[in-house]
Amino acid sequence: MRLRNIKDKDIILENCPLIIKEPKNIKDTWHKYFNNNNPIHLEIGSGLCGFIIKMAKEYRNINFIGIEKQNIALAKGIKDLSEINNLKLINIDAKELNEIFSKEIDTIYLNFSDPWPKARHEKRRLTSKEFLKIYDNLFKNSKTIIMKTDNRELFEYSISSLSNYGYIINNIKTDLHNSNISDNIFTEYEEKFTSIGIKIYYIKAIKD
Amino acid sequence: MRLRNIKDKDIILENCPLIIKEPKNIKDTWHKYFNNNNPIHLEIGSGLCGFIIKMAKEYRNINFIGIEKQNIALAKGIKDLSEINNLKLINIDAKELNEIFSKEIDTIYLNFSDPWPKARHEKRRLTSKEFLKIYDNLFKNSKTIIMKTDNRELFEYSISSLSNYGYIINNIKTDLHNSNISDNIFTEYEEKFTSIGIKIYYIKAIKD
Repeated sequence: MRLRNIKDKDIILENCPLIIKEPKNIKDTWHKYFNNNNPIHLEIGSGLCGFIIKMAKEYRNINFIGIEKQNIALAKGIKDLSEINNLKLINIDAKELNEIFSKEIDTIYLNFSDPWPKARHEKRRLTSKEFLKIYDNLFKNSKTIIMKTDNRELFEYSISSLSNYGYIINNIKTDLHNSNISDNIFTEYEEKFTSIGIKIYYIKAIKD
Repeated sequence: MRLRNIKDKDIILENCPLIIKEPKNIKDTWHKYFNNNNPIHLEIGSGLCGFIIKMAKEYRNINFIGIEKQNIALAKGIKDLSEINNLKLINIDAKELNEIFSKEIDTIYLNFSDPWPKARHEKRRLTSKEFLKIYDNLFKNSKTIIMKTDNRELFEYSISSLSNYGYIINNIKTDLHNSNISDNIFTEYEEKFTSIGIKIYYIKAIKD
């Protein structure tokens, strides 16, 4: 997603109470940080943060953390946002995740991730073997990845990659909004895509 | 598939050299029967047999066996067909497979199987746990199932069912004829569906 720059992005990020500036200091102590033992769900690539904000408001007994490497997206999404107890946001790259979490996450969401269509960029896809290895160390017990995409090739690739890595494909939908899944929370992309008739693919994968 | 009856179906089946009348007598000795050690590929639900006949002609070093429970379909498909060395057909129900094969099959094809959409008929779907159990005893070593369907729900169900049963989803396509798979052999259904723009789903699943 290419976004127009906003001048005061650094100030927004600096002042937002939801942004964690030194997340590496919290590694191993996230439950203490949230001051509860509720499950922690992580969204990788939160973009404008619409999904994770709505999720946090809907499910108060889950702690949500969104990471987003693009500071412009993050700043646009959180502008004027006040404190939400069970939500934190971090401005980092997914490659750094092992420096921030250790066996503390219950569920990972991958929403409309960059498909990186070229074969030579496979490793950059968030469902590549390389990233699945990173996630292994984030999860507490059972591993759950929930993914949405409008990209057919990324959907097909991800099923195969997850399955080959040992995940069970618990549920898939090739047209999420025309399926029996009724508790879906929309991302910004999803609202836009769906309004112009683009189908959304869905995967729920589980590994013990 | 509902087909118009043909009067001489029994005579056609009786006289066709490709039909095996007493398949249970060949259990454990299929390689001897084919007089070679080539892999044996099985299609469950061959219908009019277009796929399996073309496969047998294309891949001479593989032995093909098609089973079809509807004698009308089989009779229509094989009418006027002469001997093909590496092809045999059997008029049985898939539930009887364990009485006919024992650790002799390399690959199973499921083409445009009945989707049995009602939940109470789940067990009848050829990718249900009940059928996957039957297939376990048919396969020689590694298990490969290759499936094509135009039915979205059966496709979604099958991925989840196969994956939960321990199969790795090696490859999937949500639009087979608009994909990088170039060696696809069409079934009769597939030709008809594709000509009117219906997308074909594809799954290749493997289990050790």
